[in-house]
Amino acid sequence: MNNEEDTIADYIAIKAIENGVTIIGLTRGRDTKFHHTEKLDKGEVMIAQFTEHTSAMKIRGRAEIYTKHGIIKSGE
Amino acid sequence: MNNEEDTIADYIAIKAIENGVTIIGLTRGRDTKFHHTEKLDKGEVMIAQFTEHTSAMKIRGRAEIYTKHGIIKSGE
Amino acid sequence: MNNEEDTIADYIAIKAIENGVTIIGLTRGRDTKFHHTEKLDKGEVMIAQFTEHTSAMKIRGRAEIYTKHGIIKSGE
Amino acid sequence: MNNEEDTIADYIAIKAIENGVTIIGLTRGRDTKFHHTEKLDKGEVMIAQFTEHTSAMKIRGRAEIYTKHGIIKSGE
Amino acid sequence: MNNEEDTIADYIAIKAIENGVTIIGLTRGRDTKFHHTEKLDKGEVMIAQFTEHTSAMKIRGRAEIYTKHGIIKSGE
Amino acid sequence: MNNEEDTIADYIAIKAIENGVTIIGLTRGRDTKFHHTEKLDKGEVMIAQFTEHTSAMKIRGRAEIYTKHGIIKSGE
Amino acid sequence: MNNEEDTIADYIAIKAIENGVTIIGLTRGRDTKFHHTEKLDKGEVMIAQFTEHTSAMKIRGRAEIYTKHGIIKSGE
Amino acid sequence: MNNEEDTIADYIAIKAIENGVTIIGLTRGRDTKFHHTEKLDKGEVMIAQFTEHTSAMKIRGRAEIYTKHGIIKSGE
Amino acid sequence: MNNEEDTIADYIAIKAIENGVTIIGLTRGRDTKFHHTEKLDKGEVMIAQFTEHTSAMKIRGRAEIYTKHGIIKSGE
Amino acid sequence: MNNEEDTIADYIAIKAIENGVTIIGLTRGRDTKFHHTEKLDKGEVMIAQFTEHTSAMKIRGRAEIYTKHGIIKSGE
Amino acid sequence: MNNEEDTIADYIAIKAIENGVTIIGLTRGRDTKFHHTEKLDKGEVMIAQFTEHTSAMKIRGRAEIYTKHGIIKSGE
Amino acid sequence: MNNEEDTIADYIAIKAIENGVTIIGLTRGRDTKFHHTEKLDKGEVMIAQFTEHTSAMKIRGRAEIYTKHGIIKSGE
Repeated sequence: MNNEEDTIADYIAIKAIENGVTIIGLTRGRDTKFHHTEKLDKGEVMIAQFTEHTSAMKIRGRAEIYTKHGIIKSGE
Repeated sequence: MNNEEDTIADYIAIKAIENGVTIIGLTRGRDTKFHHTEKLDKGEVMIAQFTEHTSAMKIRGRAEIYTKHGIIKSGE
Repeated sequence: MNNEEDTIADYIAIKAIENGVTIIGLTRGRDTKFHHTEKLDKGEVMIAQFTEHTSAMKIRGRAEIYTKHGIIKSGE
Repeated sequence: MNNEEDTIADYIAIKAIENGVTIIGLTRGRDTKFHHTEKLDKGEVMIAQFTEHTSAMKIRGRAEIYTKHGIIKSGE
Repeated sequence: MNNEEDTIADYIAIKAIENGVTIIGLTRGRDTKFHHTEKLDKGEVMIAQFTEHTSAMKIRGRAEIYTKHGIIKSGE
Repeated sequence: MNNEEDTIADYIAIKAIENGVTIIGLTRGRDTKFHHTEKLDKGEVMIAQFTEHTSAMKIRGRAEIYTKHGIIKSGE
Repeated sequence: MNNEEDTIADYIAIKAIENGVTIIGLTRGRDTKFHHTEKLDKGEVMIAQFTEHTSAMKIRGRAEIYTKHGIIKSGE
Repeated sequence: MNNEEDTIADYIAIKAIENGVTIIGLTRGRDTKFHHTEKLDKGEVMIAQFTEHTSAMKIRGRAEIYTKHGIIKSGE
Repeated sequence: MNNEEDTIADYIAIKAIENGVTIIGLTRGRDTKFHHTEKLDKGEVMIAQFTEHTSAMKIRGRAEIYTKHGIIKSGE
Repeated sequence: MNNEEDTIADYIAIKAIENGVTIIGLTRGRDTKFHHTEKLDKGEVMIAQFTEHTSAMKIRGRAEIYTKHGIIKSGE
Repeated sequence: MNNEEDTIADYIAIKAIENGVTIIGLTRGRDTKFHHTEKLDKGEVMIAQFTEHTSAMKIRGRAEIYTKHGIIKSGE
Repeated sequence: MNNEEDTIADYIAIKAIENGVTIIGLTRGRDTKFHHTEKLDKGEVMIAQFTEHTSAMKIRGRAEIYTKHGIIKSGE
């Protein structure tokens, strides 16, 4: 049922700089739809892998996003 | 149905510098067609992998695009 | 039953800077749900891998999070 | 039908410096033919992988092309 | 019965700075439970791999923890 | 029919410095013959992989050729 | 009976700085138990791999422990 | 009929500094024979992979040869 | 009977600084026992791989031990 | 009949500094015999891979030999 | 009969600084016995791989031993 | 009959500094015997791989030996 390769997939980290930062997971399949939404309050950190079900993420609100291409500040 | 290799595919990050930045996913197959369009408002960040269905992306509007070849500013 | 690849998966470390730091494991599958919550008191350190069951973690409270993208301070 | 290896193929990025930049995909097979043409207006960015169907691309007009061999300015 | 991949898994080292440092191994499976507790006295060093049964460790008390993300001081 | 490995093959880039730069693809098989000719006008850029059918390329006219061994100026 | 992968497993080195340094091997399986104890006198060096049977080691007494995370001094 | 590994084989580049530079491909098999000769005029560049049929090349005349061991000037 | 992987296993080197340096090979299996003892006189050098039968070595007497973690001086 | 691995084998380059440089290929098999001799005149360059049939080469006369261990001058 | 992996095994080099340097090959199997002895006179160099039959070597007499851990002088 | 892995095996280079340099190939099997002797005159260069049949080489006479551990001068 689960994908064995998933455990070695890459991950990103997101730190909320304000309340109500939203992380939206988009589905991997033929249709790109929202399948999960996570809310972060100020100071909370989310660490997330790409998975069999998630091939894209959208971040709304002021946050620092730690990726292999550097740190990106959203919501400014 | 889904591609197990996909979870380790590369990803890019796109930060909108203005409202209405458009990210268009183009299909991988024999025909290159639009299959998904995502709108970003100012400050929103999208992190997206290449997938079994998406082999190209087109970005319209002012944005910073984080890739393995460096940071590219669109819409200027 | 267990995933053999899991033992070589990446890990992060979390050091609590105050009492009551919470680490929440989110499920990998089609539904993203909380499946485990770990409480850390001040000075305690948690070292955790991504697993077959955990594809994301959420950290609440003041902590230092050691990742491959650098050290992230939560709860500030 | 699709090639599983494709998701980890290399990609290039193209930023249009003027309107009407043309990106032409050439077929991989025994015959090298045009199979897709994409137009970019000024400021638009295209990020594209080599695929099962595309083994070469031709860029016309003023653009910056981000590759593993460096940044190439076309149309000058 | 044992996992052949386990012998090449990553390891961490923990040096106790005071008596009574506790290292708690958490189970990998669907349920995250304590399955082993190891006590270290001042100056003792523990070197431990992630295994088929252990996907997380919790350290209590003053210790230096040597990881691939650097040296972390617990219990301060 | 197509070679799955091809999508991860190496690529070179060619920028025409004058009109009429010619890129000739030579066949891989037992006989080395011309199988495709591409003309570039001044400023046009061609990005091309080696493929199942092409194991050599010949460039005529003034161009900059971007390879893993450096940038080569032809036609001088 | 033996694990072929074991010969390429990582190793650590332990140098005793005083008599009576103890190296305790802990079992890999579901139960974490002591399965071997080795005594080192001052100046003796032990070089040991993780094996199918050993996933953790505990060092007591003054010693220098050479690991991929650096040199750790125990027993101080 | 063709070798799938060939597309990822190494390549060299040859730039003719005078007219009539000759590149001779030698066969890989038990007998080492000439199987292809390519003539380059001044300024022309040839980029060539080793293939299933070619395991050696001989260059006559003034040229710059770009290899992984550096740039070699022939014909001087 | 022999392990094919063994020929690429890691090796260490031991140089005796005095007569009577002892290198003891410990067995890999469930029981950790001495299975071989090698004596080195002053100036002699032993170069040894980990094998299917040896997962640990103990060195007694003054020697320089060359490992991937650096040079360790025993017997001081 | 041919060895697929051969196309990714290593290569060396030989530049003749005088007329009559000789490159002799020696056979790989149980018997080490000459199987091919190539003559280079001054300025000619030979680029050659090791193959299924050639495991050694002997160079006579003044030449520069480009290898992964550096440039070697023969015939001096 | 022979081990295919052996050709890519690591090698060391030994240069005799005096006459009568002895290189002793020790067997890989359950029993560690001498199986070959090679004598080097002053200035002679031996280059040797670990093999299916040899997992350790002992060097007696004044020599320079070139290994991946550096150059070791024996017999001093 | 031949070993496919052999073409990617490592190689060394030997340059004779005097007439009569001798390179002796020793057999890989259970018995270590001489199976080939090659004579080099002053200035000649030999480039040789380890093969299915050769696991060691002995060099007599004044020569420069190019290896991955550096350049070794024999016969001094």
